Amino acid sequence: MARKNAFYAQSGGVTAVINASACGVLQTARQHPEVIGKVYAGRNGIIGALTEDLIDTSVESESAIAALKHTPGAAFGSCRYKLTSIHEQRAQYDRLIEVFHAHNIGFFFYNGGGDSQDTAYKVSLIGAELAYPIVCVGIPKTVDNDLAITDSSPGFGSAAKYVATSIREAAFDLASMSRTSTKVFVLEVMGRHAGWGTAACALAAEEEGGAPHILLLPEVAFDAERFLAKVEEALMRYGHCVIAVSEGVKRSDGEFLSTSGLKDTFGHSQLGGVAPFITNLISAKLGCRCHWAVADYLQRSARHIASKTDVEQAYAVGRAAVEFAIAGRSAVMPAIRRLTDAPYQWDIIEAQLSEVANQEKLLPPDFISADGFGITEAARRYLAPLIVGEAYPPFKDGLPDYVKLQNAAAPKKLTREFAV
Amino acid sequence: MARKNAFYAQSGGVTAVINASACGVLQTARQHPEVIGKVYAGRNGIIGALTEDLIDTSVESESAIAALKHTPGAAFGSCRYKLTSIHEQRAQYDRLIEVFHAHNIGFFFYNGGGDSQDTAYKVSLIGAELAYPIVCVGIPKTVDNDLAITDSSPGFGSAAKYVATSIREAAFDLASMSRTSTKVFVLEVMGRHAGWGTAACALAAEEEGGAPHILLLPEVAFDAERFLAKVEEALMRYGHCVIAVSEGVKRSDGEFLSTSGLKDTFGHSQLGGVAPFITNLISAKLGCRCHWAVADYLQRSARHIASKTDVEQAYAVGRAAVEFAIAGRSAVMPAIRRLTDAPYQWDIIEAQLSEVANQEKLLPPDFISADGFGITEAARRYLAPLIVGEAYPPFKDGLPDYVKLQNAAAPKKLTREFAV
Repeated sequence: MARKNAFYAQSGGVTAVINASACGVLQTARQHPEVIGKVYAGRNGIIGALTEDLIDTSVESESAIAALKHTPGAAFGSCRYKLTSIHEQRAQYDRLIEVFHAHNIGFFFYNGGGDSQDTAYKVSLIGAELAYPIVCVGIPKTVDNDLAITDSSPGFGSAAKYVATSIREAAFDLASMSRTSTKVFVLEVMGRHAGWGTAACALAAEEEGGAPHILLLPEVAFDAERFLAKVEEALMRYGHCVIAVSEGVKRSDGEFLSTSGLKDTFGHSQLGGVAPFITNLISAKLGCRCHWAVADYLQRSARHIASKTDVEQAYAVGRAAVEFAIAGRSAVMPAIRRLTDAPYQWDIIEAQLSEVANQEKLLPPDFISADGFGITEAARRYLAPLIVGEAYPPFKDGLPDYVKLQNAAAPKKLTREFAV
Repeated sequence: MARKNAFYAQSGGVTAVINASACGVLQTARQHPEVIGKVYAGRNGIIGALTEDLIDTSVESESAIAALKHTPGAAFGSCRYKLTSIHEQRAQYDRLIEVFHAHNIGFFFYNGGGDSQDTAYKVSLIGAELAYPIVCVGIPKTVDNDLAITDSSPGFGSAAKYVATSIREAAFDLASMSRTSTKVFVLEVMGRHAGWGTAACALAAEEEGGAPHILLLPEVAFDAERFLAKVEEALMRYGHCVIAVSEGVKRSDGEFLSTSGLKDTFGHSQLGGVAPFITNLISAKLGCRCHWAVADYLQRSARHIASKTDVEQAYAVGRAAVEFAIAGRSAVMPAIRRLTDAPYQWDIIEAQLSEVANQEKLLPPDFISADGFGITEAARRYLAPLIVGEAYPPFKDGLPDYVKLQNAAAPKKLTREFAV
């Protein structure tokens, strides 16, 4: 195989470990200089390719690349940008070929969730349909754990560890305060359609009846009356009630709870905020004092409490992507396969991008308890190993010491601009 | 001194390290069996004394007591309960004496913030005014850092480390997303009147212009026009804007922003939530996409990212309280005295409860930058050492392994009930 340069980019919502995948890609590529020349990173995902805004990663030191393994966010910038099909918008694909050709790019690595794997899949088609030879490999990533084929998605384990740790800690706080003050605590967790993150909160319970007492999952239509009865029951039994709620919880008519009526002083619907909605409902109907937290970006960037298992898997899919590419495999994505639950064993297999793109894996019905407010033992067996192990970043002056790369732009070779 | 039993209780909002103070009290008391007999803990603060709901800590193992040092929340339960004066409500004090007498209690340790030190001070007066001999020592605690006399308050350093770490991590996330998606991130931090926690977020900035770009402090009246201009400036210069806001930010008329008009479907004012208020303002006026987080209890219970300095100080004030008591000092509180900023050196001095009770230490004017949206170098020098050092709890199955004590009730000796 003739030596070619590679393009790597990060896409979609970021995670605490997407840079660990970048680290896996870059370190592995550097071990194969006979096949892969430079690795150019796209500044802000596919937009970097379309605008010829390429970052020359070869100027980064070995230690800076190694530090990506413990740095959250997307070191090269991410984007939310969906390619339409070759037939609908041929100009975008012609532009990609123009840029790839100008920089001798023969490998394309795209690191993201379901939408991003769709982008990777579409780019893979330019080989067959537009006769530009390129090896395209997707790299999985999402805090939502909703990617198909792969047993788990890098990024999820760390977010899961963060929310389970946080709700356990808040539960200790609430239990202390409940005699004279706050009796209900609500934590809002990311997940528009899939309740994996909220389900992971249940790992915080150390025994039957331990906090969290109630989960509100997007897979289960919200029923205010049943929910309030469940809260009352927890208050009676434990004196307090800890609740984890998915941001995407919906009413039976499919409307998001979080947009059900909160208005600001300008009359606009409030952004997000299902946790305040839930606590307002409880205090209005049950008359008890409530506290709520919305972790938002904190849960997907909390590298300080990342899961070691997750960091290892994020690195492994980055490394495997390069190995797949070197082996000439295209239109594929490294996926995690679970071999056993306990001890937890896994390996990496090859998934077809066509089967991963635009799919969304929800919580299966047998992971949700009969009353809809909790998870089953099967779910617990699945989730438990994903949060195991600590992988602390180095600290400096009391704070995590994260790396910022130079992100030097590679000289442009094209004169034509391309607007995105 | 004749051997007497001791009473210890935890009061007010809890912290990640109030149990480290409890550990200091209990371990030190156990080293002086010739002076201190049993240590009874009040279940839910002073309420435990009033209702004769005493926990016999002598049945707890050495290892359980040691584990308090890494466990958040209040192991014996806390309360929000203020004693009125002896003259206003004599019955309460007569009841305390009745309970103390029945259980041979000669030492009273009360662990809390400004209100709690007021309680400790009032109890200390029963010696002189009601002729019941008791040694009363307060133990400082508050995430708000607003206690007088002491240079810093145990609990604050860990909350400060949590919010500074969290906003640094979220800033990495936001910087990744800002090209095509979210451009503003707002983190709401505890602090109704004092902006110490929000000020600590500024430690996350690694260089001039680093995130967070704007602080909204309760000490500075909110001016929407000036604030929006500052946000626009940050967006122009950095492409994104990270904001830390105190829950207690007020308008120039003194009204809390967080209650300025958000209504739920029932027409009730929304609980808390100045972060959504701020983001709604920005998106309405500047038209950009915003994300917000409200850490709430997470910031004061995050033992997993506690400051080692804070843990050590929390333990030290617990130990010193017992040493003061053994030395016969009453109506006092161990306070932290700063000797030097760098290297950070401190020791413990004796503060008078009368001077600590009901005081509130706000950010001094020379800690706030000229434009009101940041902190000065003096503030940075003060804050920096308080978050230094990590003191990770042990983990089990991927989660912090916190202790739950047996909290066995001591047999009641009184027949009379007392309602609180």
